[in-house]
Amino acid sequence: MTQPGASEVRPMIWEGDRLRLLDQSLLPGEEIYLDCTEAEQIRDAIVQMRVRGAPAIGIAAAYGMALCARATISLAPEHQRRALQDCARSLAATRPTAVNLFWAIERMQVQMSGAPRPPAELAEVLTAEAVRIEQEEVAACYQIGRYGAELLPAAARVLTHCNAGALATGGYGTALGVIRAGWEQGKVSRVWADETRPLLQGARLTMWELMKVGIPATLVVDSAAGFLMARGLVDAVVVGADRIACDGDVANKIGTYPLAVLAHRHGLPFYVAAPTSTVDVRLEGGEEIPIEERNPEEVTAPGGVASAPAGAEAFNPAFDVTPGTLITAIITERGVARPPYTVCWSRLGLNLPPPTQERMAQR
Amino acid sequence: MTQPGASEVRPMIWEGDRLRLLDQSLLPGEEIYLDCTEAEQIRDAIVQMRVRGAPAIGIAAAYGMALCARATISLAPEHQRRALQDCARSLAATRPTAVNLFWAIERMQVQMSGAPRPPAELAEVLTAEAVRIEQEEVAACYQIGRYGAELLPAAARVLTHCNAGALATGGYGTALGVIRAGWEQGKVSRVWADETRPLLQGARLTMWELMKVGIPATLVVDSAAGFLMARGLVDAVVVGADRIACDGDVANKIGTYPLAVLAHRHGLPFYVAAPTSTVDVRLEGGEEIPIEERNPEEVTAPGGVASAPAGAEAFNPAFDVTPGTLITAIITERGVARPPYTVCWSRLGLNLPPPTQERMAQR
Repeated sequence: MTQPGASEVRPMIWEGDRLRLLDQSLLPGEEIYLDCTEAEQIRDAIVQMRVRGAPAIGIAAAYGMALCARATISLAPEHQRRALQDCARSLAATRPTAVNLFWAIERMQVQMSGAPRPPAELAEVLTAEAVRIEQEEVAACYQIGRYGAELLPAAARVLTHCNAGALATGGYGTALGVIRAGWEQGKVSRVWADETRPLLQGARLTMWELMKVGIPATLVVDSAAGFLMARGLVDAVVVGADRIACDGDVANKIGTYPLAVLAHRHGLPFYVAAPTSTVDVRLEGGEEIPIEERNPEEVTAPGGVASAPAGAEAFNPAFDVTPGTLITAIITERGVARPPYTVCWSRLGLNLPPPTQERMAQR
Repeated sequence: MTQPGASEVRPMIWEGDRLRLLDQSLLPGEEIYLDCTEAEQIRDAIVQMRVRGAPAIGIAAAYGMALCARATISLAPEHQRRALQDCARSLAATRPTAVNLFWAIERMQVQMSGAPRPPAELAEVLTAEAVRIEQEEVAACYQIGRYGAELLPAAARVLTHCNAGALATGGYGTALGVIRAGWEQGKVSRVWADETRPLLQGARLTMWELMKVGIPATLVVDSAAGFLMARGLVDAVVVGADRIACDGDVANKIGTYPLAVLAHRHGLPFYVAAPTSTVDVRLEGGEEIPIEERNPEEVTAPGGVASAPAGAEAFNPAFDVTPGTLITAIITERGVARPPYTVCWSRLGLNLPPPTQERMAQR
């Protein structure tokens, strides 16, 4: 198994008093780390997509809460607590779809519950929890890679969408973790990387990561996947996830759903790779997942240069929902879930809260 | 029925001694006509996609042959004929997929067959044939619009891909002809225009045309079609075609096939609108259609600005093939063809050559 080495992409580095975030909006042209010493800076980095990817924004938000706690050790406990709750709300308001953000913030809030602690002690507790979240999420990626690689056929040509790599996580990646583990075992021969309009995370980030670790990769426009499959050039599709509902419905980058429909038509396995922090145990189905709509200018003016006529109307949903029925398996760090997904989460040790259980029983 | 008016887009204007071509590579930013006085200029314009769209490049090539004939009236008949054959070869070598190019060149060659004519007379004959091709193709678009509009449901929200509008034809358009005729009859409420990577003909050309004639249009990235259909926001898909095989398989802009697969999943009608000059009566099935592969830089450097890392490999097929089995109907100027397509061409007055008939009978 790979461990982080010289060629390893490090999307964020915790320095004890600051989080150094690799500014993904500048990649692949420039590799610049932002020094975040305040939660506000992390919030801005999430909003501006300088850090993106469901697991990565969860980890970054946890460090944001830690930084807030460290900045407020001179306050009275109740004032620190109020500052932390404001900070949590502010971080939670950044992006609506990836549930890892809310999951991480809630984990931090659990550490704040119970009897009030002295502010300096709470700061240490929250820092330790943020570090733990990061470490667990990185370990999850390696485990996902191990489970996922087992599913790949020999010499697989794997198609992926957007970036679910080291950059989108604490390191190693989810979909790209599966691809990397498969490559290390000689099971992956080539990656087809969808460029992923509008923000081109596939072209900018996935190609950068794959070239960095030396995995043969070919970039295509998003709409070429059908051509590749029809020509027999794809053996499996592996993507990440921003939120998974209990029935296995998966919200992921816009364009994921068409890939699943195409894979189904061509009899190809369609895998989702994600840590269990991406499973929203409160949601029965994908129709409950809020879908972020982003600035239409990302569509009308790619890279800031207008393509459409002035005044052109555009619609820019950032995610779509793939029904669990089209997903061959969901690869988590706790094991591989397969349809029907509604019954497999408890086997993987996930506890569905009683209201969700009840609603699902009524289906 | 609409006739060309002040707001009409005129992709090319024949001036008797020159063809004025609207340079589509500069739209929507600049509306500049290229004055083509030599066949060579038309050849270059086709190669550089200053004129594009299957019917439009057929018409332009016909005018290219006319210009060649006019430039060679001082030669001996056999030398003029040789120059014209060289010109035909050069024009035919520009782009491989759209069959209208070869169809138009062949129509011009038919005029050259038989007893040699005096060069000046042949020039007049070829000019008249090019004008006739243009007029027939424009008339075909209006007729396609009329037939196609009948198929649309009330208040239809129509999704289209690439540009099959006035710009891609002699005028009015094929897919956009259907949409325009539908709009004029109050049957179209909105158009979803796919931006159509890599060259963004949807964003640059379709949005420009629709905004010019005042049809409500919303631009989306190509991969958003699945989201729109899943949300119930699309009532029909209408696209153009670059080549149609006898079994109804359709080569069209990359990304068309995924739309057909998605439409099928969602029970939505998927229409192809094209003049019969797009039907290649020599091909049984779509697997015989040559697919153009274009410069990978169109993918790695959208609009000339690198998105992928330096040295990134890319694959850039310009078209894909949609099986006739996924196509609800093919709307031509001679009527509406429906599956099984193999038997409907003769009803529309198209003659399959005996070798094709024979091969198809053996299927």
